[in-house]
Amino acid sequence: MRDVLKKMKASGADYSHSVVVTVSKGIELSSLTTPYEIIAEELGISKNRIVVLSGPTIATEVARGVPTAAAAACLDQDRAERVQRLFEKTNFRIYRNDDPAGVERAAALKNVIAIACGIADGLGFGTNTKSALVTRGLREMIRFGRVWGVKDETFQGVTGLGDLCTTCFSSESRNRGFGERLGKGEKAEEILASMKMVAEGVVTAKSVYQLSKKHGLEMPIVTEVYRVIYEGKAPKDAVKELMSRPLKSE
Amino acid sequence: MRDVLKKMKASGADYSHSVVVTVSKGIELSSLTTPYEIIAEELGISKNRIVVLSGPTIATEVARGVPTAAAAACLDQDRAERVQRLFEKTNFRIYRNDDPAGVERAAALKNVIAIACGIADGLGFGTNTKSALVTRGLREMIRFGRVWGVKDETFQGVTGLGDLCTTCFSSESRNRGFGERLGKGEKAEEILASMKMVAEGVVTAKSVYQLSKKHGLEMPIVTEVYRVIYEGKAPKDAVKELMSRPLKSE
Repeated sequence: MRDVLKKMKASGADYSHSVVVTVSKGIELSSLTTPYEIIAEELGISKNRIVVLSGPTIATEVARGVPTAAAAACLDQDRAERVQRLFEKTNFRIYRNDDPAGVERAAALKNVIAIACGIADGLGFGTNTKSALVTRGLREMIRFGRVWGVKDETFQGVTGLGDLCTTCFSSESRNRGFGERLGKGEKAEEILASMKMVAEGVVTAKSVYQLSKKHGLEMPIVTEVYRVIYEGKAPKDAVKELMSRPLKSE
Repeated sequence: MRDVLKKMKASGADYSHSVVVTVSKGIELSSLTTPYEIIAEELGISKNRIVVLSGPTIATEVARGVPTAAAAACLDQDRAERVQRLFEKTNFRIYRNDDPAGVERAAALKNVIAIACGIADGLGFGTNTKSALVTRGLREMIRFGRVWGVKDETFQGVTGLGDLCTTCFSSESRNRGFGERLGKGEKAEEILASMKMVAEGVVTAKSVYQLSKKHGLEMPIVTEVYRVIYEGKAPKDAVKELMSRPLKSE
């Protein structure tokens, strides 16, 4: 993405009056920043000209026209509203949101929890297990978001909880699918070598794990996903670890 | 339940030193109270002797031994902890919670959202649709919980969001299944007449709808579920109504 933006800038075009809509998701490992920040930096425009469009929007379902909700997030609410009106149509409902940094972090973090849910699927567990992972995972996401100073509420909206649910429960999610193969006993490197598309959660798990250590945050689910992918821990042992932590209040 | 409790009381047994664990869920239509309150009233014991055990615990999955999380909720945290230690075992993880009234309300309300998700399934919609319903539905549940003065956080824990996810995504949920048949075009009365077990959300939809009108609360999902069940509104029109509300921020 950074390379493409550099080329766009080098073309000599003037972006200072543009509004940029981004649908890319992820966290750059080297800088730990997100697309929205990278766009502002590379194009040299104000962050309040960038609108992040995000939500539980599995592409094949959007194409089928099933009712779908998403959010247009921008520091400038007038621009969020312009994008909202531009993309809104029958069965595609868009909410406004004023926390683009939060929306992007939620979109990246949810992929790590989806890998955990995939592992549970691969081990033959059930909806009970995944629902517990979604609930506790959302709490880890919120805890982590506070490090960046983004809003708790963003994680509870369509671009947070909504996207998390879709990614954890849909059979079409790549990150969940990656986890499922881990749970069935394949090694991370084998799976990655055989995948045509990227499972972004694999890289995100690493950056989030490292940041959680640095900030002394308790992130048990992210930690176990990291260990299974990068330290070859057996998925069954990872689950055992999660289920045998000291009893406590919610 | 009230009848059984009356018989227990009439037997002459002394319950004043008992700790009662309840796993029943629902809202009594005539009094709008929950099992935990009815037990205290009928047995004449203090509410702080009653522990509500709740969570995303589909019975067949618990029987299979898949990792499951639940909560033991009691005003008295020592008693919550006793129950926690009593029921905790491998793959059955119990958290403590101090908001039994909130736990029971969440358990009842989630069934109405599950009916909405079932309707979406019956109409052939996707995970995008259900994830949006879960997210916006949780918000309605929280809004409604405030009328009763229960804690927002309870709705975000395993007995709130966790139970909501299981009930909305599991193929085994009775309330979701009831909604699915509605979505496929069957009439509510026909479905109810053919069901062996109760879909509690049907009654809960009515009491919550009435209370929301009384308190002037905006509860669009509950309202549409009520209209489909009790006013014969076409499920497709109900969805159209939800998707065409004025655009706004989250």
